[in-house]
Amino acid sequence: MVAIPCGFESRLAHSMEKTTKSAPGGKTQSLRIIPLGGLEEVGRNMTVLEYGDDIMVIDLGLQFPEEDMPGIDYIIPNTAYLKDKKDKIRGVVITHGHYDHIGAIPHSIGRLGNPPIYTAPLTRGMIIKRQEDFPNAPKLDIHQVKLTDKIKLGCFKVEFFHVNHNIPDSMGIVIETPVGRIVHTGDFKFDHSPINEAPADLARITQLGQEGVLLLMSDSTDAETPGHSLSENEIQKTLEEIFKGIEGRIIVATFASLLTRVQEIIWLAEKFGRKVAVDGYSMKANVAIARELGYLKAKKYTLITPKQANDLPDHKVLVLCTGAQGEGNAVLMRLATGEHRLLKIHPNDTVIFSSSVVPGNERSVQNLRDALYRKGAKVIHYEMMDVHAGGHAPSEDLKMMINLVKPKFFMPIEGNYYMLKLHAEIAESVGIPSKNIAVPNNGQVVLVNQKSIRLGKEQVPANYVMVDGLGVGDVGEIVLRDRQAMAKDGMFVIIAVVDSKTGRVRGEPDIISRGFVYLRESKELLDQTRGKVKEIVNQATSNEHTVNWTYVKDNIRDKVGQFLYTKTQRRPMVLPVVIEM
Amino acid sequence: MVAIPCGFESRLAHSMEKTTKSAPGGKTQSLRIIPLGGLEEVGRNMTVLEYGDDIMVIDLGLQFPEEDMPGIDYIIPNTAYLKDKKDKIRGVVITHGHYDHIGAIPHSIGRLGNPPIYTAPLTRGMIIKRQEDFPNAPKLDIHQVKLTDKIKLGCFKVEFFHVNHNIPDSMGIVIETPVGRIVHTGDFKFDHSPINEAPADLARITQLGQEGVLLLMSDSTDAETPGHSLSENEIQKTLEEIFKGIEGRIIVATFASLLTRVQEIIWLAEKFGRKVAVDGYSMKANVAIARELGYLKAKKYTLITPKQANDLPDHKVLVLCTGAQGEGNAVLMRLATGEHRLLKIHPNDTVIFSSSVVPGNERSVQNLRDALYRKGAKVIHYEMMDVHAGGHAPSEDLKMMINLVKPKFFMPIEGNYYMLKLHAEIAESVGIPSKNIAVPNNGQVVLVNQKSIRLGKEQVPANYVMVDGLGVGDVGEIVLRDRQAMAKDGMFVIIAVVDSKTGRVRGEPDIISRGFVYLRESKELLDQTRGKVKEIVNQATSNEHTVNWTYVKDNIRDKVGQFLYTKTQRRPMVLPVVIEM
Repeated sequence: MVAIPCGFESRLAHSMEKTTKSAPGGKTQSLRIIPLGGLEEVGRNMTVLEYGDDIMVIDLGLQFPEEDMPGIDYIIPNTAYLKDKKDKIRGVVITHGHYDHIGAIPHSIGRLGNPPIYTAPLTRGMIIKRQEDFPNAPKLDIHQVKLTDKIKLGCFKVEFFHVNHNIPDSMGIVIETPVGRIVHTGDFKFDHSPINEAPADLARITQLGQEGVLLLMSDSTDAETPGHSLSENEIQKTLEEIFKGIEGRIIVATFASLLTRVQEIIWLAEKFGRKVAVDGYSMKANVAIARELGYLKAKKYTLITPKQANDLPDHKVLVLCTGAQGEGNAVLMRLATGEHRLLKIHPNDTVIFSSSVVPGNERSVQNLRDALYRKGAKVIHYEMMDVHAGGHAPSEDLKMMINLVKPKFFMPIEGNYYMLKLHAEIAESVGIPSKNIAVPNNGQVVLVNQKSIRLGKEQVPANYVMVDGLGVGDVGEIVLRDRQAMAKDGMFVIIAVVDSKTGRVRGEPDIISRGFVYLRESKELLDQTRGKVKEIVNQATSNEHTVNWTYVKDNIRDKVGQFLYTKTQRRPMVLPVVIEM
Repeated sequence: MVAIPCGFESRLAHSMEKTTKSAPGGKTQSLRIIPLGGLEEVGRNMTVLEYGDDIMVIDLGLQFPEEDMPGIDYIIPNTAYLKDKKDKIRGVVITHGHYDHIGAIPHSIGRLGNPPIYTAPLTRGMIIKRQEDFPNAPKLDIHQVKLTDKIKLGCFKVEFFHVNHNIPDSMGIVIETPVGRIVHTGDFKFDHSPINEAPADLARITQLGQEGVLLLMSDSTDAETPGHSLSENEIQKTLEEIFKGIEGRIIVATFASLLTRVQEIIWLAEKFGRKVAVDGYSMKANVAIARELGYLKAKKYTLITPKQANDLPDHKVLVLCTGAQGEGNAVLMRLATGEHRLLKIHPNDTVIFSSSVVPGNERSVQNLRDALYRKGAKVIHYEMMDVHAGGHAPSEDLKMMINLVKPKFFMPIEGNYYMLKLHAEIAESVGIPSKNIAVPNNGQVVLVNQKSIRLGKEQVPANYVMVDGLGVGDVGEIVLRDRQAMAKDGMFVIIAVVDSKTGRVRGEPDIISRGFVYLRESKELLDQTRGKVKEIVNQATSNEHTVNWTYVKDNIRDKVGQFLYTKTQRRPMVLPVVIEM
């Protein structure tokens, strides 16, 4: 392994002016930027930088499955392009600890030859913790970096700068490449009065701009939202107003990954003389790691167990838990349904949903709220907190980033295609010429040199790789289509045993059906179907000497399918089995 | 049929002062209000009013299925309570033409004995049109009412008043019952400068309040939103601003049921000298009915066909279509994917999404937007239009309704439980004592007389009745659970033919699996499974004289299930078939 984390002797002041190596053919060699994920979706972020024999990777994230992918746990980037290039990978740099940036590590790092990972302390802690859930995944070669560190990954020299997001230790990356300096923002926003951390390092970003930046790759997630971020400080004030009016117990549900919000809530609880009972697997895990590494501060006796909470009067208790998305087995749902082992909803409880609803979860959240109301709790769904203070820079902040960095070239990253396009429009509006902006698709090779940025013709595999249980990539179109079909109308297996001497169906064909009709109440339909099958088989065997069983089976499939549709207007998957005896 | 639409001789001025009939036992008889749907969800609205031998029904709506109901077309109210009371049903009154108020008619009206339906002209037109899609449904006995009509349904005397919503001809209902006067708002909002109709009839509502109202049943859908409705007129101004800046073609996608919005768009198109090509099955149908009945106005040559649109310059064309929810087969998706037979996206097209995204459709809409951007179109997603001018009264308007009607009793309707609860809090805040407010569940019998309103102990069936193809109510828990299971991990059928003489498995067991693994790449797993099955069968038959085949099959199911889980961490539905020969 060539990757050696080390300091540079001196900063490369004007990297844009450096001479570019010439490729063997004499032509100027370009840097190849290959986004393997994150450019057509929000999630599974992964970018490859390749120059000569050196490759570095930024982020290795997962995406949650879409509605038409039943049974899929999540989607990770396709790393096929790197399969034969493992020995060129000098390292993986991770910008921050959210799953859409770290989640593919357990599944993919082995396929990349287990290269070294470089990231900030909290992110490192979260990656290591998650790896424990995958006993078959390799032991990681993971290195902690400080913001002042400079590391060398082959021909790439990497530095870091602090940005705000909604988890501590979020970093932007500066990469000195042979063609010039690249700034990659990671997920970011600007918060001038953040909670528990410094504002984004505007001085450093300004300095980078003054020194010269060839290419800016910037977070597009919130490009559609006008204006600036609302500071977390403002959110805290609003939360404080809410807390003030509450007399009974407070239950706050949020994402375990929103550690900044978690810190706010703990501090507010302390201010109002409440102890905090943390509950939920991921919430407890994240709080433990963040506390251990000094990223989450709580007074000595603030954190208590749910059991201890039951011994305190209601106005002294705050429960901090998971489940704001209505997830069936998370703490909040178990509270609402009365299935929590230790905690019960009290009639004067106030439940605060402190995160916006993820698309697709709205119905579950409505049902959850109904269940909480039925138990007498009051619900405050303060969506505005996330609408106005999400983790990502809205359009005015995006402009500011571009204005400070003053890049020659611009490439929007992290977002659906339309978000990238809107971000490209924003860049144009602040003076980046459209020919200097590249909006690639996943897998499209972007070629950058000192003179130009362009979308290459080369397209590497970047399709969805689905993770389902232990299987990575083995569930494809066919399996998914079958799942969808069976989900819609069920399946219908017909087993006919045929006497090889007479060619007649022996006895009655067996029918196994699930998800189609309630069998006990469909006797007539089943009898008619059996009759149809016998008729088809007997007819086929009576006329011909050699029976084409494939034809017979196709015939059963078509005719039974048509028959069942006429009777029910449903199309179960019909699967005929003919056994000759 | 006893129901006779007729005028009253004189208005019953103070119905609250009327004497209430006494029940046989001497006790004062109460009116029974039985909500069969609409109180634990937004959708499938249906309310039964019962007094002595008279029953009337308000609305007969459907609800769209939830995410965990694959293959279900929609959900309708359970009408089992009315099964033996058909001859008491004097009529069904429909408040307006949206599916959550009319959609169950084709499926349920026959089960109610096809009683007469009373509704406004446009609603009537839409109900009749929809009935044509159900050739097996009975011919309707449907009567048109005017706002000035008074009809008698047994002991119930029904009048109507005009409210605003987002479809013309929306009505509130006044019911003189033997215990007093009830006001049912239907879906409503107050719009003081509506499009293409009069403002809600505040004078009539005020008069009702002055005369005395025993019970107000009022729409809770938007109880959570603070403030007042924004007038459609304001929306039109914003739309006009948007239209002004557009040079190419305009494509507006919205719900076909938002006829008020459709009218606005047609008028704006005329103002900007554009012709309107209406496309999409439901959009064309609704526009046709509304025009025929005079509810939608367009100049003689405004409406054109998509084909004619292609002969006009872009700046003269507006396409009005369905598909703003990203539905796979709607017009907008076909445009985006290039599969529309007549229309193609032009690079200077502007697509306006003129409706908010229905929960669960967010991902589809994002994909749709990506596809449109890729074709070079610009997308304006003006969600604010619906956020601020939905069809339902927000909290300040709800207060105004209560203040004008001045009811003695109050019952929130139409909404999830938590919406009803919030509406109840609103009612309390404007002076309705909490003992005078009833918040029932679906199926819970509410007893009302002049002195009290209370939730009875009686609970009638009100569970979901699912419609799937031709089946109404035949898909239940078991079928749905099977569909969910197969969607998640597929199914796995094992067929073992056993020689009845030797008790040994003949040849190799057949395996039919779908949605589990890609079979061609899982040969080893299948071979191992076959081995396991043979082992289990042979063991069972070697030791005992009479083989318990149920036990053997259970054993195969458990052991193969466990084996497959160990190998894949997936749990397909394992279905063993043993055939003795």
